[in-house]
Amino acid sequence: MADPVAVGKAFTDHYYQTFDTNRSALASLYQDASMLTFEGQQFQGTQAIVEKLTGLPFQSVQHRVVSLDAQPTHAGGLLVFVTGQLLTDGESKPLNFSQVFSLMNAGGSYVRVVGGLMVVVVIYSPLSSLLSPLSSLLSPLSFLTYSPTLCAVQIVTNDLFRLNYG
Amino acid sequence: MADPVAVGKAFTDHYYQTFDTNRSALASLYQDASMLTFEGQQFQGTQAIVEKLTGLPFQSVQHRVVSLDAQPTHAGGLLVFVTGQLLTDGESKPLNFSQVFSLMNAGGSYVRVVGGLMVVVVIYSPLSSLLSPLSSLLSPLSFLTYSPTLCAVQIVTNDLFRLNYG
Repeated sequence: MADPVAVGKAFTDHYYQTFDTNRSALASLYQDASMLTFEGQQFQGTQAIVEKLTGLPFQSVQHRVVSLDAQPTHAGGLLVFVTGQLLTDGESKPLNFSQVFSLMNAGGSYVRVVGGLMVVVVIYSPLSSLLSPLSSLLSPLSFLTYSPTLCAVQIVTNDLFRLNYG
Repeated sequence: MADPVAVGKAFTDHYYQTFDTNRSALASLYQDASMLTFEGQQFQGTQAIVEKLTGLPFQSVQHRVVSLDAQPTHAGGLLVFVTGQLLTDGESKPLNFSQVFSLMNAGGSYVRVVGGLMVVVVIYSPLSSLLSPLSSLLSPLSFLTYSPTLCAVQIVTNDLFRLNYG
């Protein structure tokens, strides 16, 4: 795997930029097997997760990442751990937050760029049966991690979020 | 699996109690494949992890858990996410921290209690080859999760720790 922290940073840059500009587009990063625990509330599946995130009671939000750590998992995925600050609706005092993402390559599918064309390479994975058809993962907003010519489509399988009021 | 939050709470009660009273005994909760990221520093394997934890520059510490969330993972493990406060060496101002643990049953091994006797049941798992012999996991300080008669030996595969100074 590429450097875990570099992949984690590319992912969270994309995730928080999407969150802060067009929350509903986060749908492309989750699948039906994904779980979100948001301030102790549990949500499962893309629809329930995106309904929760788009329904949060603020109009504008800005996330700032303070620390980012990442480790590969035994299952071949990536664990990403973020602490940061967020500002909502022009508040001047930021709230501290912590968030954990567990990422998996989507069904072992890869997109190889060959002479400017995208060629999809599907590799067997035990996760395949849990995931939606590949086509839904290839929207322009899907998250791709790059090695020079090979991009893995990453989805969020576990997402846990907490504000730290301390 | 039993209720993820209940298992997570049983684990973290045991982990932080051990941390606060006898840090070196944390060795029983890690294996050679385990990874720790502590304030951005990486450590792999029981020895390196326990050397880091026992070498932290304070004599006494108390952890207090403020929030605990847990989710099952696709790999059959458990992701535990804690925010809390810690006090070192009689300081009166607590430091906020966040910590992530990824737990796996140790090599698919279970301890079944039958008529007051412990009977070890070893079940095949892809992790088996990564783990040390079972005997080392059954010290009195190993962590067991209970269902009525079946206990799974849990180890920490991923551990990520951050202080939040904000």
